[in-house]
Amino acid sequence: MRAEIIAVGSELLLGQILNTNARFLSKELALLGIDNYYQSVVGDNALRLKEVLETAKKRSDFIILTGGLGPTKDDLTKETVAELFQTGLSYNEDALTSIESFFTKRNRVMTENNKKQALVLKHSKVLENHFGMAPGMLLEKDQKMIALLPGPPKEMEPMFLNQLKPLLELKMNHQATLTTRVLRFFNIGEAELETKVLDLIEAQSNPTIAPLAGDGEVTLRLTVKHKDANMAKLLLDETEAKITERVGDYLYGYDHTSLKEQLFLQLKKQNLTISAAESLTGGLFSGALTDFPGSSEVFIGSIVAYSTNVKEYHLQVSKEIIDGVGVVSEEAALAMAQSVKEKFGSDIGISFTGVAGPNKQENKEVGTVFIGIVGKEKEQSVTYRLQLHHTRQAIRERTIKYGCFYLLNELKRWNRKE
Amino acid sequence: MRAEIIAVGSELLLGQILNTNARFLSKELALLGIDNYYQSVVGDNALRLKEVLETAKKRSDFIILTGGLGPTKDDLTKETVAELFQTGLSYNEDALTSIESFFTKRNRVMTENNKKQALVLKHSKVLENHFGMAPGMLLEKDQKMIALLPGPPKEMEPMFLNQLKPLLELKMNHQATLTTRVLRFFNIGEAELETKVLDLIEAQSNPTIAPLAGDGEVTLRLTVKHKDANMAKLLLDETEAKITERVGDYLYGYDHTSLKEQLFLQLKKQNLTISAAESLTGGLFSGALTDFPGSSEVFIGSIVAYSTNVKEYHLQVSKEIIDGVGVVSEEAALAMAQSVKEKFGSDIGISFTGVAGPNKQENKEVGTVFIGIVGKEKEQSVTYRLQLHHTRQAIRERTIKYGCFYLLNELKRWNRKE
Repeated sequence: MRAEIIAVGSELLLGQILNTNARFLSKELALLGIDNYYQSVVGDNALRLKEVLETAKKRSDFIILTGGLGPTKDDLTKETVAELFQTGLSYNEDALTSIESFFTKRNRVMTENNKKQALVLKHSKVLENHFGMAPGMLLEKDQKMIALLPGPPKEMEPMFLNQLKPLLELKMNHQATLTTRVLRFFNIGEAELETKVLDLIEAQSNPTIAPLAGDGEVTLRLTVKHKDANMAKLLLDETEAKITERVGDYLYGYDHTSLKEQLFLQLKKQNLTISAAESLTGGLFSGALTDFPGSSEVFIGSIVAYSTNVKEYHLQVSKEIIDGVGVVSEEAALAMAQSVKEKFGSDIGISFTGVAGPNKQENKEVGTVFIGIVGKEKEQSVTYRLQLHHTRQAIRERTIKYGCFYLLNELKRWNRKE
Repeated sequence: MRAEIIAVGSELLLGQILNTNARFLSKELALLGIDNYYQSVVGDNALRLKEVLETAKKRSDFIILTGGLGPTKDDLTKETVAELFQTGLSYNEDALTSIESFFTKRNRVMTENNKKQALVLKHSKVLENHFGMAPGMLLEKDQKMIALLPGPPKEMEPMFLNQLKPLLELKMNHQATLTTRVLRFFNIGEAELETKVLDLIEAQSNPTIAPLAGDGEVTLRLTVKHKDANMAKLLLDETEAKITERVGDYLYGYDHTSLKEQLFLQLKKQNLTISAAESLTGGLFSGALTDFPGSSEVFIGSIVAYSTNVKEYHLQVSKEIIDGVGVVSEEAALAMAQSVKEKFGSDIGISFTGVAGPNKQENKEVGTVFIGIVGKEKEQSVTYRLQLHHTRQAIRERTIKYGCFYLLNELKRWNRKE
């Protein structure tokens, strides 16, 4: 089955919003073993939408449309699909009820144009919207499948996962033959990684190995074709072993995980609590660690010490340090980590201090960063120095990634020693 | 000039990464007054890339390609463009030198495959890459313009802004006739907003008015066609005045701003400092406010009080409150805001406490949130209660937006009183 994703909305062509839907759906199609060769974006224009739909109808078996189901005048998706596939539109009672209750629940007044959202394609399967008003649809006609999903990701994603995906799994009849495993690396460049495993990439055909870089991380995507799931796993394990033999030190996780998630899970596993003292990262490290349900089991709290005063009076960074080496220093990082750990009574304290830019600070270059880590035992105290070459925003983001990566490595080291 | 954006990379079709480049470029094209009717994504496959390029060559005057310029075997963009536009490739000395120094600067060893990145299209203008290795190119041939830009946004964006954009501005010969103004609203639904200004939307043709919703915000995009910039501004002002007369209470800013930026600017303008006490938001509010260069002028620091202990011992939330109404309460929010303000000596204290989910807490529903704001004067103390209906992540994000919105309104109110 060849699928194609079409996003409808002039806001995309004008760059007002990101097309996160295409990414989400592509990922899901890959998991289902459905080939996705094209994505496109077209504006809220009936003529061009029809053109793009006609092309898609010719070259693909399954068309997924996102957007254009809303209440306003420029929402045209249903109408255009109805015309091209020669079917009508009719009011759906359940959808209408659900739209009305949406307003009642929020104590808002329902305006008349909202009713338009309850119009659905005749003979289509209606997909309920549990997080918004416009229902989705799945139409099967002319030996094609066409899915219409709402534009807002918070509505589209659960609708796809809970309603459309089970239908697609049935269609694919469990014939999912493609299995993918993504190996995630940090602290190594793309070209360096590729060079180290180039002979493997060139020699392998099943699984294939594809490198990809982004946001300071590199991944290797292993894709194996095999009907038998156990055999597929075995083939992936073999290839992974060959790779990790060479670059295993940089591997931190698999598939859709992140450094912050790995850190959260590792802390939980080792039953350790943490607190943080943040300067240049301004709370983002704490924000990242509390992204996960159950994070209160490991995360106690933190002090965001943006001003020097807060560092001095609330994190015991001494006058000597401040006037001597300055707050962007190994010494300050260590004092901050130690202080927040004691203050909040956590097992671990971690600190971030540095120059996010755009200007130098204490005559230190933009991108100079110190990370302090203090553990339970006296010998578990360490600082790292980074010199990053990026924009302010990227320096802050990378700093957090390095913090997670370094602490992960420390945790594993401590664990081995015990 | 009709432009078209093509992103090259199987990682996009597999949903591994987001196509942020298409958004960035679309936005920039709109500002330049260049029409962008299509975006597409195609994999690292020479045949399909050529197909998509052929279609683009037929229907567009200007093709912008992103991705596929890297060092690895599956990077094929230059080669495919060279074939379709019948031109060759040659090594660029400057690019080669810059690639070598990239490695020297980072103390990394340069592998041989990196040299491939210095190959450029003959007769093209080379665009230097200041944040990565692969140079970009602008080729003019067969009465078409074709730009090749690197895939990583951190390389592509500065290359576009500093090198390609000035060339395009010259080409457009200052004939930019489209002027856009985006009005940004918060705390009002899309349909409600549209209903209130529907007659204006239907009556207007210049400027046009287009509504758009996303992430709890609604925008109205006003687009005016006029050669004279003053006249364009006048027409936009007139339409804006008609709109704000009806829904001005919800308007918080213009164009590419955000609630957090508006808050930062307003604090700066009123010369006020702030500190925060964060529970469910876990540091994200502080992280948001410190996004901006110069944020140390307004932001002092914060205490992320995830555990109840931290709330009790470091934010003076009394035992009576904790055992009585609980930490998710108006009383706790007020105590937290008051305490952090005093502790850090800022003019304003703001606090966030609530249930991010997935489970109830203190028998309070997921999405129950209290925001406390305490200002300089005794009467400047206020709490807000929210009941949000979203996922954990969205509850945290919305809470921060509401915090910014409420504080912005308070700041304006305090300002008027003085």
